[in-house]
Amino acid sequence: MEVYFDNSATTKVYDEAIDIMVKTMREDYGNPSSLHLKGLDAEHIVKDSAGIIAKALKCMPEEIVFTSGGTESNNMAIVGTLLAKKRKGKHIVVSSVEHASVSAVMQFLIKEGCEVTYIPSDENGIVSPDAFADAVREDTVLVSCMHINNEIGSVMPLEEISRRVKAKNPGVYFHVDAIQSFGKIPVVPKQIGCDLLSVSGHKIHGPKGSGFLYVKKDLLLRPIIYGGGQQKNMRSGTENVPAIAGLGVAVNKTFTDFETKIDHIRDIRNRLCRELTKIEDVYSNTDIINGAPHIASISFVGVRAEVMLHALEDKGIYVSSGSACSSNKNKESAVLHAIGLDKKRIESTLRFSFGEDNTEEEVDYAINTISELLPMLRHYVRG
Amino acid sequence: MEVYFDNSATTKVYDEAIDIMVKTMREDYGNPSSLHLKGLDAEHIVKDSAGIIAKALKCMPEEIVFTSGGTESNNMAIVGTLLAKKRKGKHIVVSSVEHASVSAVMQFLIKEGCEVTYIPSDENGIVSPDAFADAVREDTVLVSCMHINNEIGSVMPLEEISRRVKAKNPGVYFHVDAIQSFGKIPVVPKQIGCDLLSVSGHKIHGPKGSGFLYVKKDLLLRPIIYGGGQQKNMRSGTENVPAIAGLGVAVNKTFTDFETKIDHIRDIRNRLCRELTKIEDVYSNTDIINGAPHIASISFVGVRAEVMLHALEDKGIYVSSGSACSSNKNKESAVLHAIGLDKKRIESTLRFSFGEDNTEEEVDYAINTISELLPMLRHYVRG
Repeated sequence: MEVYFDNSATTKVYDEAIDIMVKTMREDYGNPSSLHLKGLDAEHIVKDSAGIIAKALKCMPEEIVFTSGGTESNNMAIVGTLLAKKRKGKHIVVSSVEHASVSAVMQFLIKEGCEVTYIPSDENGIVSPDAFADAVREDTVLVSCMHINNEIGSVMPLEEISRRVKAKNPGVYFHVDAIQSFGKIPVVPKQIGCDLLSVSGHKIHGPKGSGFLYVKKDLLLRPIIYGGGQQKNMRSGTENVPAIAGLGVAVNKTFTDFETKIDHIRDIRNRLCRELTKIEDVYSNTDIINGAPHIASISFVGVRAEVMLHALEDKGIYVSSGSACSSNKNKESAVLHAIGLDKKRIESTLRFSFGEDNTEEEVDYAINTISELLPMLRHYVRG
Repeated sequence: MEVYFDNSATTKVYDEAIDIMVKTMREDYGNPSSLHLKGLDAEHIVKDSAGIIAKALKCMPEEIVFTSGGTESNNMAIVGTLLAKKRKGKHIVVSSVEHASVSAVMQFLIKEGCEVTYIPSDENGIVSPDAFADAVREDTVLVSCMHINNEIGSVMPLEEISRRVKAKNPGVYFHVDAIQSFGKIPVVPKQIGCDLLSVSGHKIHGPKGSGFLYVKKDLLLRPIIYGGGQQKNMRSGTENVPAIAGLGVAVNKTFTDFETKIDHIRDIRNRLCRELTKIEDVYSNTDIINGAPHIASISFVGVRAEVMLHALEDKGIYVSSGSACSSNKNKESAVLHAIGLDKKRIESTLRFSFGEDNTEEEVDYAINTISELLPMLRHYVRG
C-alpha cells in the first residue's frame, strides 16, 4: 500500500491539469508575445487562467501576476515592496514562524541594510495583532504574515492584523503567504485586507513551477525579474503557458465541491489525531478545532522523527519531519519551540498532511502500522 | 498548411519531453526536499538532468543551477554578480544589442546606482573584443555579451572577448547569454572562457518554465531568490521536477544527430534567403556564411513588417517582427540600426527562425506565398 500523507510538501497533479498541459504543449505552443495567431492563442490561455483565479479570490484578473511558484511570489512581494518604497523606509514586521521563503528573504534584506522586527507566536502557534500593531512604525513599509502555519496548521488572525496595522500606519503594505491556505480555507484578499498574497500551484494539485502573486490594483510595486516586459512589466520572461493552463484547471477543480472535500480531509485528519493520541506518549500539536483542516503535527516521544519517518517509509507511508519544503533538513522548528514543546517532543515530531485523494482506509493503515511499529522502535532505537 | 517559422521565439516541445513530464507528474510527484522515497526519486530526476546538461556543456553537473527560464537565468547572473561583488565595484560592460532580459536588467541596475558601458555592434552586428577590453576598468565587476544575436543571427567573438577582458582585469566575471546559441552552435563554457552562461529550455523544444544558469565552480555568486536553500542555496523554491526532466530529455535529443539537424536547418534557411532576395527590393540582413544557422532576417521594402506578418499569418505562416520575446512589441531594433539599415528597411523587416521539424516543402510554400503576396501588398498598402 502506498500512502502519501505529505500533501503540504507537494501534491500529485490532477489528471485534468496534466491533460491541459499536454494539449497546450502540443497545440498551443506559441509565445504569448508573438503577434501571430499562435501567440494570440497562448495569450488567451494565460488570460483564461487569470480569470479563473480571480474568481476564486474574488478579485480582478489584472491583479494576478504569474510566477514560477510560491517562493518566487514571496520574494517578489517582499523585495518588490522594499524596492518600491525605498524612500519611505526600510523597516519590516514579520512573524517569527514564517516559512523559509519569507524568513530567508529577511536575512537577505537585513544584510542589505533593512531592519526586521519579528513577532513571536503564542502557545497555540498564533501571532498577536496587538504585537504587530505595536511593532509598526512610521518608517515601516511592509508587514508580512503567513495565513496557515505550514508545520502545525495554526490559522493567523489576518483580518485583525490588517485592521490594526493599517490603523496605525495606512501606508504599510500587508503581504500574506497563503501557500498553505489557498484551497484549504477561504482566501479572499479584500476580506483579509491585504495588498499582496502569495500562492503556489503544486500545493493544490497544480503543476510545479506555477504560482502567482496577487497584487492589489494600483499598488506601487517593483518587479524582481526584468526583461521583455511581460505581464504588464511586473514579471518578465516568456509566460509558462502550459503550467499556467494547468494551474487554472487545478484552481477550478480545487473549488468544485470544496466544502465536501475539506470536510473529508478534516474528518480523516481528525481520525488520525484521535486514534494516535490514544497511544501512550503520543501528542498532537495541532488544534483540530480552530486550526487548518489538512495538517496534523504529532510527536511520538521516545523515537526520533527521522527514525519514525524511515520506518513508515518502509511500509509505504510518506510523511514529513519539519516543514519539508526546505533543504535545511535539520533546522530546528521555530513554531514547535514557540508552542512550548520540549526538546524531546520537538525531535520526535512528524507532520501528516492530507489531500482530497486520501482515504479513511489509508488512515487506518497508518494508525495500525504506527501502533505496531512504535513499541518496537521505542524499545530498540530510543530517541 | 501550417508553417511555424518562429522557432527563436519559442519551439514546439518534443514528444519525448512531454512523455517524461507526464510520467514525472503521475509517478514521481514528490518534493526533492522530502526525506522519504518519493522525495529521493524526485531528487534523482533533477540530478540526472544536470548530468545530461553537464555532458552537453562539457562541465560538471554541480555547475548547473536550474531556473524558471532564460530571463531568470540572465537576471540571476547579472544581479547575483553585482550583489556578490558589491565591495569591488558597480561597473558593467555590455553589448548594445542584448536581448531585453539583459538590457532591462541594466536599466534597473542604473537606477540602483550602477554604471553601465554599452559596446556598439559593427555593420555585421558583431561587437569588438577591443572595445570590450578598452571599456573594462578596475572597478568593472561584470562583462555580459550574447552569443548569437536573436534578431539577425550574428555570432559574437566570445573567446576573444574573454581573453582580452580577463587580460585587462582577471577579476571580472564574464556572462554569456547563450539562449539563442545553445543547441545551434557549440556552446562550451570552458572553451568560451566564461564564468556564467544562460540557457532557456523552450528555445530547444524543452518545456516553457525551464532553463538553467551555468555557474563556474567556486564562483562567488549570490542568489536572487531566497528560501528553503534548494540547489545548494543558489536557487530556492521546490524544483520544477517535471520541467527539469523534460529539459534533460530535450537537451539529449537536441544533441543527437546534431550536425545533420543543423545542416538541414541551415540548408532550408539559406534556400529561403536565396530565393526571396531574388525579388526586387527584398534584402537579407543575415550573414549566412558566418552567422547562426537558424535565423533569417529579411526586409521587404515597401511593406511594413506587421502588414506582411499578418498577411503571412492568413496563409498559415508564422514569423516574427523584431525579437518577439518581448512585450514591447513596437520598440525599434538596436541591432538593425547598428548594421546600418535605414528606416524603410528596419520597418519592413521580418525574422524567420527555423527548427529541425521545418521542411523544404514549407520553405517553398513560404517563398511562393511571399512572391504572390508582395506585389499586391506593395501596390495596396505601401509601408
